[in-house]
Amino acid sequence: MGEGSGTTSDAPLVLLSGGGGGARLAAGLSQSSAERPLLVVTNTGDDFEHCGLLICPDTDSVLYAVSKTIDPQRGWGRAEESWSVFESLKDLGGPDWFQLGDKDLALHLSRAALLAAGQDLAGVTTALGDRLGVPPNVAVIPATASPVRTHVVTEQGNMAFQEYFVAQRCAPVLRSVAYKGIDSASPADRLRAALDDVGAAGTDVVLGPSNPFLSLAPILGIPGMQGLLRRAARRVVAVSPIIGGQALKGPAGKIMSELGLDVSAVGWTRWMNEQYPGLVDLWVWDETDEAAAGDLRAEGMDVLTTSTVMSDPKRAAAFGDWLLGMCSCDH
Amino acid sequence: MGEGSGTTSDAPLVLLSGGGGGARLAAGLSQSSAERPLLVVTNTGDDFEHCGLLICPDTDSVLYAVSKTIDPQRGWGRAEESWSVFESLKDLGGPDWFQLGDKDLALHLSRAALLAAGQDLAGVTTALGDRLGVPPNVAVIPATASPVRTHVVTEQGNMAFQEYFVAQRCAPVLRSVAYKGIDSASPADRLRAALDDVGAAGTDVVLGPSNPFLSLAPILGIPGMQGLLRRAARRVVAVSPIIGGQALKGPAGKIMSELGLDVSAVGWTRWMNEQYPGLVDLWVWDETDEAAAGDLRAEGMDVLTTSTVMSDPKRAAAFGDWLLGMCSCDH
Repeated sequence: MGEGSGTTSDAPLVLLSGGGGGARLAAGLSQSSAERPLLVVTNTGDDFEHCGLLICPDTDSVLYAVSKTIDPQRGWGRAEESWSVFESLKDLGGPDWFQLGDKDLALHLSRAALLAAGQDLAGVTTALGDRLGVPPNVAVIPATASPVRTHVVTEQGNMAFQEYFVAQRCAPVLRSVAYKGIDSASPADRLRAALDDVGAAGTDVVLGPSNPFLSLAPILGIPGMQGLLRRAARRVVAVSPIIGGQALKGPAGKIMSELGLDVSAVGWTRWMNEQYPGLVDLWVWDETDEAAAGDLRAEGMDVLTTSTVMSDPKRAAAFGDWLLGMCSCDH
Repeated sequence: MGEGSGTTSDAPLVLLSGGGGGARLAAGLSQSSAERPLLVVTNTGDDFEHCGLLICPDTDSVLYAVSKTIDPQRGWGRAEESWSVFESLKDLGGPDWFQLGDKDLALHLSRAALLAAGQDLAGVTTALGDRLGVPPNVAVIPATASPVRTHVVTEQGNMAFQEYFVAQRCAPVLRSVAYKGIDSASPADRLRAALDDVGAAGTDVVLGPSNPFLSLAPILGIPGMQGLLRRAARRVVAVSPIIGGQALKGPAGKIMSELGLDVSAVGWTRWMNEQYPGLVDLWVWDETDEAAAGDLRAEGMDVLTTSTVMSDPKRAAAFGDWLLGMCSCDH
């Protein structure tokens, strides 16, 4: 173990996350006994304007998950939610395709008020996190303050992400994905500052088990983001969202299949490695896929397997512990 | 009675209204047995952006009043209101100086969705009114689609209207009022079209018993508005908000006093006549002030008195009936 290890274990572990498995992992890492600082970089490609309000579904899911205010059954939105406004909105013939809980709506309104007062998205997110009870060792930072909006090209035409994801329930066959605004986006100032603070010893960067097309790509495609992460990283670890040939939740498997990719941990690893050459040092798969790891290891790729299924907070915390333990030794 | 009277009684009676007495009168006129079409022109000077949403307090009060969804006790907002979001908003440290009921909020969200879809403010207001159950013979049209924002200059400095009216409860001593944006505003297209349709016989225009500085001035000060009303009007009737030397509700009396005006029906009439020369044909006062009418009548001004106190829907309807009856004969 090198001289830098003392430093790196104090530097925040950096997690890139969407709103599903990434948010679960964020919660698991945040409640790990190691209490290592955690910096969660959230996908903003899902963000959209709805009824005049900016809604940040992935950021909010991470905020709710790490503050333990998330609805554990649904896996999104607030626990003990009520729906008074949404019922009235439907009575008024307002848009009913996106469910707005009362507590959730209060967050969107608070965000709008803070943005209108001139705070940037990362500052607003920190303020909201404090109010929700995000632990002090956890920072949640949306990847960029510039609007990046994911759009999908499907056999039923082009549509904005939420139209595809929520209104159409990912049914249309996907042909390609575009990230509008990404070319003129840049990493959030707060993220840049936090990563600059890491120091020469570097820290650990984890790509959560999030959808590679819909959650990680809108982060990693931001100009300058990969270089920023690589410079701060002692090691970049990617966690497979594909377990036993399918995604546990969400459309990652369906999309891989529609794009002609091999829906497997191997297929995901090869695609990621081609898409982001030199970015990832270590691939973490579920133990289910151990048998398939041999070929890639023979090619010199570093693949570890463990139990990555985060079906409840305990298992998420256990996987978080495993990741932190793995990061704190010289694998 | 002239040949035109048949025409005028079919043309909509036009009411200029704020959110208090004007809204009550709108409700009274809309439920009058005469069922004459009613066009309510609402003040937009109170409109403001709050938590990312455009809120139109006077327009909403009129919509709620004429659709009988208003809270009769408070005199604003929706009946059978709940406050789930507002409670959560306070928990999140969001702005708590402006009360947002759940049903009311649903209207603001619906408005935002319709505005985002490209409808203009008047079209949006009509759509919302239909949903709320505004009677088909009633049109509610915000005076202008251009942003006009009332600001007040007080002894405690300048402030936006809602800051003065809601947060400060009109306590600061008022020195003057400014209507930001009014010089580049113009009457709403729908209002212009409706008034152009009135025809040569003209119709009746009523200035409701609304605050002259805060409700009527931001309508009447819109360039072209007075000419538009005058051209459509057979007669312009103004109802005094001052009864027995005070305003029944709201700060009209306090403001008149702070501006050095005589707080009386006489003082109000003289100020209105100076402010809008040639606009008003007939002044309607409460019967309480009958004794003071002699002087003005001697000067050739047309003053009628009746019971104008609209303390409940029945009395509002009775005053509405009186106004409609008065308008349908050649006074």
